[in-house]
Amino acid sequence: MSQKAATAAVLLIGNELLCGRTQDINLAYLGQRLSARGVRLAEARVVSDEEEEIAVAARALSERYTYVFTTGGIGPTHDDTTTAAIARAFGRRLLVEPAAEERLKKYYGVDALSAPRLKMATVPEGSVLIDNRVSGAPGFRVGNVFVLAGVPVIMQAMFETLLAQLQDGAPIRARSLTAPLGESRLAEGLSEIQRRHPDIAIGSYPFAREGRVAVSIVLRGTDETRLDGAASEVAALMRDLGAAAADIERG
Amino acid sequence: MSQKAATAAVLLIGNELLCGRTQDINLAYLGQRLSARGVRLAEARVVSDEEEEIAVAARALSERYTYVFTTGGIGPTHDDTTTAAIARAFGRRLLVEPAAEERLKKYYGVDALSAPRLKMATVPEGSVLIDNRVSGAPGFRVGNVFVLAGVPVIMQAMFETLLAQLQDGAPIRARSLTAPLGESRLAEGLSEIQRRHPDIAIGSYPFAREGRVAVSIVLRGTDETRLDGAASEVAALMRDLGAAAADIERG
Repeated sequence: MSQKAATAAVLLIGNELLCGRTQDINLAYLGQRLSARGVRLAEARVVSDEEEEIAVAARALSERYTYVFTTGGIGPTHDDTTTAAIARAFGRRLLVEPAAEERLKKYYGVDALSAPRLKMATVPEGSVLIDNRVSGAPGFRVGNVFVLAGVPVIMQAMFETLLAQLQDGAPIRARSLTAPLGESRLAEGLSEIQRRHPDIAIGSYPFAREGRVAVSIVLRGTDETRLDGAASEVAALMRDLGAAAADIERG
Repeated sequence: MSQKAATAAVLLIGNELLCGRTQDINLAYLGQRLSARGVRLAEARVVSDEEEEIAVAARALSERYTYVFTTGGIGPTHDDTTTAAIARAFGRRLLVEPAAEERLKKYYGVDALSAPRLKMATVPEGSVLIDNRVSGAPGFRVGNVFVLAGVPVIMQAMFETLLAQLQDGAPIRARSLTAPLGESRLAEGLSEIQRRHPDIAIGSYPFAREGRVAVSIVLRGTDETRLDGAASEVAALMRDLGAAAADIERG
């Protein structure tokens, strides 16, 4: 990796996420897809529908990371405040974008473009539209901020269309080893393996299986040979601690 | 509500959440439980296992909200950096807390308290321990920051033990109305209802059911009579737009 890896932040928008009505699944999706693209998702925030909260968070994340992806709040109703917030965050006027209006006319019919629907064709000046193949109303990009829908199937379709716009990095790969051991028994050996492999992020995730402790060790990095080497050291550590080779699951 | 409602933030900690390996379910749980207690969850952040990232986020949220709840990163392995980060954030030394050591001895046995396990008895000076009835290692509270486990079943058990320590507010209640209508048709009427009821937060959540559009309108507030009044107005709006009374589901 001669080029410094791109970084990203995700901004999840909506009261429904904070009051626990809706279980977010967009963060995990974006995390997986960005890793595969070699972009490191470094932070996420969840804010309410308050325009000022969205604007402050969007600007802070935009200054800090290569890319920002927002989800939610671009629909036709009063609680959809993301577009106005992004305009405010970056000092842009709101304009009806003719290309977006065309797409909505195609989706809803020429005569059915009410004021709320026209709101979905309104974007900050200078935005680049993001295709929505599912339901017409587009997302948009302002600078390094990609504004996506909140409904997962629409968000995913939008994200896939913009993937080619992202800087191409070495994909972040993972190796996983699971064994019926308590994680505290692995802790010291694992620290040593981590020290020997500073380019690999090693995580330890304990869980219970049929009432007995188990642990998954996950190694993440871009160099497959080095990943395999570190994974072999973890497997050896697990065997030293008494796990039978057949009990170590690799993924 | 003469007393100003308490606010809260959640800080979810762990590389596994940002790379999409693990689907978080702690945020929705905390959002629901805090609402029921009358505490408004205003913001959440997700950060990696980097000590400095955790410290910066914890301090920022601690200054801004009545309570902060962190999840994850308090186990025995090298990637569990939350305790050190919280100590750094608030300028406290790390100490082995005898009461925590006692609990771990009881859980693991007196002779099995290895250095990694002792790490789980190490907390910032002046912390108040939070009971862990599931797996021994306690959480802790420093000022207005509650540091909880990441494993949901443990996090939930810890949270329930500390509920009594939170300021008691008027529970935030919800009414929900679902109808087979597109949300853009409701948008204008809904804006008017929102204007008439500034103490109620009205959200509009579109979805597809058997390939047809539908929408749930959710009203949230603390006054049940006013909530019922606003919900009746939403139901009337839905009927005006052609929804049969029998097609409007209430929840």
